[in-house]
Amino acid sequence: MLEPTIDVVGIGNALVDVISHETPEFIAEQGLIPGSMNLIDEERRESLYGSMGVAIEASGGSGANTTVGVASLGGSSHYLGRVRDDQLGEVFNHDIHAAGVGYSNALATDGPPTGCCLILVTEDGQRTMNTYLGASSLFGVADVDEDVVRSGRYLYLEGYLFDPPAAQEAFRHAADVAHDAGRTVALTLSDSFCVDRHRADFRRLLETHVDLLFANQDELCSLYEVDDLEIALKAVREDCAMAAVTRSEKGSVIIAGGGRIDVPAAPVAKVIDTTGAGDMYAAGFMFGLARGRDLATCGRFASIAAAEVISHVGPRPAVRLADLIAEI
Amino acid sequence: MLEPTIDVVGIGNALVDVISHETPEFIAEQGLIPGSMNLIDEERRESLYGSMGVAIEASGGSGANTTVGVASLGGSSHYLGRVRDDQLGEVFNHDIHAAGVGYSNALATDGPPTGCCLILVTEDGQRTMNTYLGASSLFGVADVDEDVVRSGRYLYLEGYLFDPPAAQEAFRHAADVAHDAGRTVALTLSDSFCVDRHRADFRRLLETHVDLLFANQDELCSLYEVDDLEIALKAVREDCAMAAVTRSEKGSVIIAGGGRIDVPAAPVAKVIDTTGAGDMYAAGFMFGLARGRDLATCGRFASIAAAEVISHVGPRPAVRLADLIAEI
Repeated sequence: MLEPTIDVVGIGNALVDVISHETPEFIAEQGLIPGSMNLIDEERRESLYGSMGVAIEASGGSGANTTVGVASLGGSSHYLGRVRDDQLGEVFNHDIHAAGVGYSNALATDGPPTGCCLILVTEDGQRTMNTYLGASSLFGVADVDEDVVRSGRYLYLEGYLFDPPAAQEAFRHAADVAHDAGRTVALTLSDSFCVDRHRADFRRLLETHVDLLFANQDELCSLYEVDDLEIALKAVREDCAMAAVTRSEKGSVIIAGGGRIDVPAAPVAKVIDTTGAGDMYAAGFMFGLARGRDLATCGRFASIAAAEVISHVGPRPAVRLADLIAEI
Repeated sequence: MLEPTIDVVGIGNALVDVISHETPEFIAEQGLIPGSMNLIDEERRESLYGSMGVAIEASGGSGANTTVGVASLGGSSHYLGRVRDDQLGEVFNHDIHAAGVGYSNALATDGPPTGCCLILVTEDGQRTMNTYLGASSLFGVADVDEDVVRSGRYLYLEGYLFDPPAAQEAFRHAADVAHDAGRTVALTLSDSFCVDRHRADFRRLLETHVDLLFANQDELCSLYEVDDLEIALKAVREDCAMAAVTRSEKGSVIIAGGGRIDVPAAPVAKVIDTTGAGDMYAAGFMFGLARGRDLATCGRFASIAAAEVISHVGPRPAVRLADLIAEI
């Protein structure tokens, strides 16, 4: 069997983020739950965008952010996702290449426009996301480059990709290809509402296809329908070889091989925008694993990468993450 | 004659900024002069964008930024400019309305795409701009809403608009309409290279159409082809009723009615991105004039607005400027 040539191959909804600062009252008026991710259609996209304040645009997409994080840490990564040949698609395509991530899916020449995520950030740094899937809604098996998947040490699957109808099949197909090549399959649960929508499918996927699970504590508790994190942690041990569970400012818990490691959060002067925190955590953790580091160090890389991205607006690192972990 | 109902009507190239952080070596490799504004064609836009790092997108355009600044200060403003009915045109259209600026030009349904400005920001906050005019290159007399111009206390003309071929006529037409309605016409020289390209036309416009001139010291010296600012200031007295000349960290000089006021720069903790400094200076100055404030206070408003915009990435205010001048 060939050695992998890429640290992490990520699959997810390719999106451009549209970020504005809003008040908690605005979030409430729009009927949104602070911190949630909501799927929206084109009509809702137009009406919500029309009500939002002045925004900036930045390439996003959870799985894409993670591959960018891996590259920023000094690792190699490749992304699989679907955008159109429109202006926002060009922006996505430019930024992922400029970040040093491999990306070879051709820009789609028909179908819905490039997807976007309208992100409302409040003064406390909390982000509420509204995703118009657009071109991502057609991501399918044909978009999975099997050679790329086989080349990746880790295949990283974004839970949000359970929402588009054709993507679940692509998900399982990619996981099978990775396993057949002897690779490790990682999944992030992405969002507790996403878990609510797809609980049974997630549970089945976990048992049959996933070696490494990323989740925050709400998502993990939602997955097992329990209130107590300790019970959820016990349950995940049965389903998965390894899990990393984030707890915001309380740090994270790594479950592996019967053991448990508690990792403190890295310090942040002021939380500005929490978008991308989980994405960067996964990037740091998998980069550490790919470099053969011990689990505590992997957790530390993860926490440092997450702390950097929440200290500024936007879902991707503003500095080279490799510089932040150079001495570790 | 009717009283004006709008504080400032601005005319300019409507652009979406594409902002990345680059090294001085990259600026040099690209053959660019740090701090300059360069006009680029579509081919150059593609090659330069392809070489640029990860970017963010934010609505810009010098004159548009100024109208946004006036609205942020609590004044009323309207913008005249040309974008297409594409994704970046929608971004521009959304942001200017969201900022509270009147904007009623219909999105063009044919011709080149919405213009953009590729802005390379270095560690010292210096910005080097590369403008692809796109849809703005077709701005003409038909895009000047005469009723809007007559409604504005100040008509603010962006010097950059001398570059597109059809715009000079629109410029003079708008100035004539404003003067016939008893309004004040303001012009910014925008950029010393722009002055180089259009020196004779600028001089003629100044003598015949402009009541209030905004310039930085390089632009003013270039206009009169002198090295000594004092000589340039003496010359501008002959051509214009009022002039406000900015000198970066040395503050600004206001020339009016035979008198002179030196205004200190407002303090800035760290200069992050100088894009929009001149635009916000003009916004603060005209807002003060429109509110009947004395010239020293107008200069202070101008300096405070400029200091805010250079303390973060992006060409428009990140906070409500009205809050920063509330006690003055």
